[in-house]
Amino acid sequence: MKNILLLGAGLSSSSIIRYLLEHSLELNLELLVVDQSEELILSKTMSHPRSQALTINALDAEARKPHLLKADLVISMLPARFHTEIAKDCILYKKNLITPSYISPEIMALHDEAINAGILIMNEIGVDPGIDHMSAMAIIDKVKAQGGKMHSFKSFCGGLVAPEFDNNPWHYKFTWNPRNVVLAGQGGASCFIEENQYKYIPYRRLFKRLDHVTIDGFGEFEAYANRDSLKYRSIYGLEGIPTIYRGTFRRPGYSEAWSQMIDLGLTDDNYVMDQSEKLTPRQFLNAFLPYHPTRSVEDKLKDFLGEDKSNMFEKFQFLDFFADAAPMGIQNASPAQLLQEILVRKLSLSKGDKDMLVMYHEFVYHLNGEQHRITSHMVNLGEDQTYTSMSNTVGLPVAICAKMILQGKIALKGVQMPIMKDVYEPILAELDTLGISFIEKEEKI
Amino acid sequence: MKNILLLGAGLSSSSIIRYLLEHSLELNLELLVVDQSEELILSKTMSHPRSQALTINALDAEARKPHLLKADLVISMLPARFHTEIAKDCILYKKNLITPSYISPEIMALHDEAINAGILIMNEIGVDPGIDHMSAMAIIDKVKAQGGKMHSFKSFCGGLVAPEFDNNPWHYKFTWNPRNVVLAGQGGASCFIEENQYKYIPYRRLFKRLDHVTIDGFGEFEAYANRDSLKYRSIYGLEGIPTIYRGTFRRPGYSEAWSQMIDLGLTDDNYVMDQSEKLTPRQFLNAFLPYHPTRSVEDKLKDFLGEDKSNMFEKFQFLDFFADAAPMGIQNASPAQLLQEILVRKLSLSKGDKDMLVMYHEFVYHLNGEQHRITSHMVNLGEDQTYTSMSNTVGLPVAICAKMILQGKIALKGVQMPIMKDVYEPILAELDTLGISFIEKEEKI
Repeated sequence: MKNILLLGAGLSSSSIIRYLLEHSLELNLELLVVDQSEELILSKTMSHPRSQALTINALDAEARKPHLLKADLVISMLPARFHTEIAKDCILYKKNLITPSYISPEIMALHDEAINAGILIMNEIGVDPGIDHMSAMAIIDKVKAQGGKMHSFKSFCGGLVAPEFDNNPWHYKFTWNPRNVVLAGQGGASCFIEENQYKYIPYRRLFKRLDHVTIDGFGEFEAYANRDSLKYRSIYGLEGIPTIYRGTFRRPGYSEAWSQMIDLGLTDDNYVMDQSEKLTPRQFLNAFLPYHPTRSVEDKLKDFLGEDKSNMFEKFQFLDFFADAAPMGIQNASPAQLLQEILVRKLSLSKGDKDMLVMYHEFVYHLNGEQHRITSHMVNLGEDQTYTSMSNTVGLPVAICAKMILQGKIALKGVQMPIMKDVYEPILAELDTLGISFIEKEEKI
Repeated sequence: MKNILLLGAGLSSSSIIRYLLEHSLELNLELLVVDQSEELILSKTMSHPRSQALTINALDAEARKPHLLKADLVISMLPARFHTEIAKDCILYKKNLITPSYISPEIMALHDEAINAGILIMNEIGVDPGIDHMSAMAIIDKVKAQGGKMHSFKSFCGGLVAPEFDNNPWHYKFTWNPRNVVLAGQGGASCFIEENQYKYIPYRRLFKRLDHVTIDGFGEFEAYANRDSLKYRSIYGLEGIPTIYRGTFRRPGYSEAWSQMIDLGLTDDNYVMDQSEKLTPRQFLNAFLPYHPTRSVEDKLKDFLGEDKSNMFEKFQFLDFFADAAPMGIQNASPAQLLQEILVRKLSLSKGDKDMLVMYHEFVYHLNGEQHRITSHMVNLGEDQTYTSMSNTVGLPVAICAKMILQGKIALKGVQMPIMKDVYEPILAELDTLGISFIEKEEKI
């Protein structure tokens, strides 16, 4: 019997637990799930005989040690900042490790130690990062094998609400950590390269410079640029490519209104507002509008928005900025924290709502003196509020990778991500059988 | 004979040195000037018999110790971050200290130790901070003494080029550290209070929400909000005042064009541009404009600027953004560093140019059921490129304060700023004789 130790039972762990327990007999495995909440674990394992609930603190090195020692494989679904200490333990006890998170510099620094310990630390194997790597590399490797030369690669991904449940003027609901959505794009400028020219978009223009994509059967999307598109040149073996761009999808109109939130200052997270606990949503908004002895907050916002082509005012109104309401009661809050509170009240998934994950790649390459274009897209809908699309698209690649490691099908060691054919090909093939499928089109241009 | 130890011979030290040497016989003082450059010291002391040039490193505690021990008073004109270690030495050796800089939390923490050592650490006694404190407190104390209740206090200050030498479309030249000008307003939002409403202006809107002031004989000014106006409520004893606002003056049109620099992303200082050393000004600008296969950088900037009410394009053109030029050659540069290089080439004071310091206060208060308004302004022109207005307005209050301390006219101990009548009254009176004069107007409204 093999043991898998899964750290964390939240969000995407649902899909990992279901997949691995469904395959538990075939793989002869037992799944140990660690979470502080036994209720959360049992709600997902359903007390399956091949599962065990461990309510230890995963961050307590002594408490987790006996379970780590027993495990054949560790999956860390903890917040990314905790992966490093888990990875160090895995090296110490010589256990393979999977995380869906970006490889941090601290994790990268463990590469040689992991190799010496004979273990694999597989990362970036959920979605964005994960399925994007695998589906892009499948096409990049194919084009290379044909002798093609890649000229342009653009890639987009977005977690949205499924069309059937898209019933608010933002055409958006939170399907993941709201804080990340509120802070999206902050920090340095977004950087990409277009026709060999480096391009930088500062945060304050990020939601104003949009790309537009239409996907058959799912309508139109707009995209803002991700922070760093450049690093994917070396990751994907595309050094010297003239154009590379990665973006995040929203539905049309979202970004123009979000840009107004940014312009107003509502998304700032680098200072605390005076007496923030006393602010109602209306007062919060008014703090960013000029003083006027008689004009209402509504009128001042209309002045601010100017020509309102995308019904931006309606979007603010939907968020209950203007209603008489109680103070939000959050002490020492930044504008971003207060905005998040306002958004979560109105843009959360309702009971019965389903989410949607959309991915779209566009490649342009030269082959035999001709220019070719491949597009590849995947749209995946959630099953319900536990097995959301976000949970499935993050969790299933992790779970399939876990299966392959137990089966001895992955020989890799060290700190890795799923960009090798031996890894991505079987995972993409199995995802396809699970409804996470890419549709590819190719044309000469 | 008394000894004054002056640390640093740059910028405003010129006016301190001249003033103290002019008064050296009367005060029976010797001035020891510390700077790494003997040439710089001698260019300012003119080898005056009551001066000594010390080319030690002021940051070397052992090297400065014998001179500190000999001194009756220390003036630190070093960059503000070095004041703390100097202040600690002054406490250790029981020497009074003057700095023109803002009181940092580290300096504030030394208050009790300074009192126990029986010394005064006088800070914020240059200009903004300094003369602004003194001239505001003179009016605030007067109104209070009459029994008036302050309703509104707005205060503005700006270092500009004198009208006679105002010959570029920005109507601006650097009279102080260009880096501070490029980074002005970055960090948290600017915060003030208007009719009891807290107002926050994020950086990206700072140069769009302007105040306008006309000063007789000097024309129009526009002002953007300083970072933190709120702290002046407690400093000036104005707790509970409904309106308090501090701003920085520019000439009309500057801010709208500067706001475009911000929107483009040219002022960002939180990341480094790839291969920055290879960028010409034109390429630097183009990196922030969308890619287009045929449109020129000029046309793309015009698209970006939109309706150009303030001749913004002309302002960009004046900075030589479009000319064929050599790469700027600055490695690992942020956008802000590259922009500074471009600005310094075109917006520095030319030989023979004079600068101008402008300060303007507006007070509204209630007295005996009536509403009163006092305005007070000061416009000071530089003498030449050594005794600039910036040097005189920063250096002279420091020097006068030094004189008063030597004469035993200031009994204060601990960490202080010049907000007490005993301090500000004689200093303002002497500044008036030196051409740094306020003109006050009062009216019922």
